Amino acid sequence: MMVSGIITLTTDFGLKDPYVAIMKGVILSINPEARIIDISHQVNAGSIIHAASLVEETCRFFPAGTIHVAVVDPGVGGRRRPILFQAESHFFVGPDNGLFWPIISNYQDGRIIHLTESRYFLPYVGNTFHGRDIFAPVAAHLSKGVDPITMGSIVNDPVSFKMPAPQQREGILYGQVIRVDNFGNLITNIRRRHLKAFAGTGQPIIHFENLVIEGLENTYSETTPGDLLALFGSSGYLEIAVNQGRACDGTGLDCEGIIGVEVKIQAQKFRL
Amino acid sequence: MMVSGIITLTTDFGLKDPYVAIMKGVILSINPEARIIDISHQVNAGSIIHAASLVEETCRFFPAGTIHVAVVDPGVGGRRRPILFQAESHFFVGPDNGLFWPIISNYQDGRIIHLTESRYFLPYVGNTFHGRDIFAPVAAHLSKGVDPITMGSIVNDPVSFKMPAPQQREGILYGQVIRVDNFGNLITNIRRRHLKAFAGTGQPIIHFENLVIEGLENTYSETTPGDLLALFGSSGYLEIAVNQGRACDGTGLDCEGIIGVEVKIQAQKFRL
Amino acid sequence: MMVSGIITLTTDFGLKDPYVAIMKGVILSINPEARIIDISHQVNAGSIIHAASLVEETCRFFPAGTIHVAVVDPGVGGRRRPILFQAESHFFVGPDNGLFWPIISNYQDGRIIHLTESRYFLPYVGNTFHGRDIFAPVAAHLSKGVDPITMGSIVNDPVSFKMPAPQQREGILYGQVIRVDNFGNLITNIRRRHLKAFAGTGQPIIHFENLVIEGLENTYSETTPGDLLALFGSSGYLEIAVNQGRACDGTGLDCEGIIGVEVKIQAQKFRL
Repeated sequence: MMVSGIITLTTDFGLKDPYVAIMKGVILSINPEARIIDISHQVNAGSIIHAASLVEETCRFFPAGTIHVAVVDPGVGGRRRPILFQAESHFFVGPDNGLFWPIISNYQDGRIIHLTESRYFLPYVGNTFHGRDIFAPVAAHLSKGVDPITMGSIVNDPVSFKMPAPQQREGILYGQVIRVDNFGNLITNIRRRHLKAFAGTGQPIIHFENLVIEGLENTYSETTPGDLLALFGSSGYLEIAVNQGRACDGTGLDCEGIIGVEVKIQAQKFRL
Repeated sequence: MMVSGIITLTTDFGLKDPYVAIMKGVILSINPEARIIDISHQVNAGSIIHAASLVEETCRFFPAGTIHVAVVDPGVGGRRRPILFQAESHFFVGPDNGLFWPIISNYQDGRIIHLTESRYFLPYVGNTFHGRDIFAPVAAHLSKGVDPITMGSIVNDPVSFKMPAPQQREGILYGQVIRVDNFGNLITNIRRRHLKAFAGTGQPIIHFENLVIEGLENTYSETTPGDLLALFGSSGYLEIAVNQGRACDGTGLDCEGIIGVEVKIQAQKFRL
Repeated sequence: MMVSGIITLTTDFGLKDPYVAIMKGVILSINPEARIIDISHQVNAGSIIHAASLVEETCRFFPAGTIHVAVVDPGVGGRRRPILFQAESHFFVGPDNGLFWPIISNYQDGRIIHLTESRYFLPYVGNTFHGRDIFAPVAAHLSKGVDPITMGSIVNDPVSFKMPAPQQREGILYGQVIRVDNFGNLITNIRRRHLKAFAGTGQPIIHFENLVIEGLENTYSETTPGDLLALFGSSGYLEIAVNQGRACDGTGLDCEGIIGVEVKIQAQKFRL
């Protein structure tokens, strides 16, 4: 087993409170050579789905042997299990609440361990901050080469959830906005393959609230500043954007409230 | 003297301006091997007490030999002294304005140095940014093994302040909210030992503004989502929380304005 | 050519989205030894001038051999070139949209490379995220010692822009506010040399909206808390500040809207 010494952190702790720094201190106290990279600490509070998509979207860009710790943990102190998931040469450490489900469901060969060996925890484990007491120390020990199999017992029934997927009904493809990014771009759950299966080579017409967009662009900059456009963004999802502007501001909705709102697509095979 | 090469930073500079990055550049120019960990740069502007509690709460989790730089410095350019405090194997570098008092007052054996040896500063020291000109370079030199004693003269009268402590009057324990965290939890200054001395084994009744809470929980998750509860949080202080919600939003007060508001506790020894 | 292994990042991506972490993953996958320092990811969205001033103001504090990546890139996917600028022993990697112009215009001896050698890019280059596909991998290869000259062809006509400069007309020096920092200080584009050339040894009278300030201070703390003052700040620019307060709040303007607002200075040689 190869470890890179790199540990990533994804939490809903924010950057003002001491919690993230405490986890880093715990890691460095066990492995002073660990290199810690923040994914984001601005996960929407308690949103397992938000954290899950961040981990899933970023982990593939890190080198083999990276350890990904994620802590969005509304069930801390209750019966939810602390787990470690090993998929090929990546490791994931956090609560068994669905956080790693998008990755677990993609790597059927992965191994899930219920973390029970308290010698890899802090000496005192409380009921409110397992990021500090369990996940940070486990990640640090892993990064020093401890074999996951020694850390607990195999889990065969991890908590799962269903990511909302686009659905086709009566000639319309229904997707939804799953994220509004820092630029006000509305990122949907529609992938290129969904649209291709639905519209073939035809040009789609995209309806979102009071907005209508005909056809797709390849890049933001091939339109005029201020133009509304749709394109497949860097993560491979259909995005609704405004060139040098904020698409979320053009909807009359609160930008945060846009999440989960329906996007409808009609296929237009021939244009008059 | 052992140094770990780890330097932590706590400031009220925010993350938008160039100030934090400039300090990191100065450190790395002197010691390219230094590893820099952010505690928080979102200290309330000018709040020495906020920074002091962050440093005090996080430093114990870092390995021996860590250097903690903290810069909340409304008196910069005036007569306040730049200091270094060495407590066992931890080092603290910053202004002598009370920032390190919670730690200094706990380690009577520590050594405080008035930083006067300008060879450990940047060549030009201005009047507005000692984080860059004095504290960052001193920390970097320390991290290379320079002996603190060569950096200035001993200080015996560091600036102190009184952290607000809970008080008991006429059968009621009076504490106050000292922080609202990222989850909207109201963190008080009441420690387990305060409550034990006051209520013994009885169940406390907690009054805060329009909220009343009977008894303590062990964890957020043993209540129903939406429930108001009180528990001892990860830092050992009594917290008022809402399971999967924000306690601060239930008070009718501005969340920031809650800080300093009184919490009253009655002891209830027998329940009918 | 010496490289330090240090790579700085400046973007308008924010800290909530996965984009910054993805760039870090790409860098570490190519050079696991790289050390990555965030300058800021809170550049005003699309503001090349804001990013340019951050890079220019911070880069000088980093050690020789540092690689500075900046990505504010409204023209991504269009015809703007990806470039690398080498100035003495510093390297700058990003879009050719003026981002590095303040540095390029200061180092006439520097070398600019149009990045065309795709073997230093990710295998697939999209139209929306060159920070991930081009700039991060180029910086990582550079940090391993790849010679810039092998990365593309020389550019002689980089995109330039004019930073707004103070102007003197009819006995008045006109500057403007270019930034409001985390403390609410209004930072102007007036340098010490501008004021000296204009006012000599006389005391300036500074007019800004409804505020009037007579004379300059050396430090925030030599005034009374709450006092409005002007001083040359840590970056060498004239600042309007309030001791332990926020100057921007005293103007009746929206703090963000203050940027670009005119500051007028009269020279006052003799006081009655």
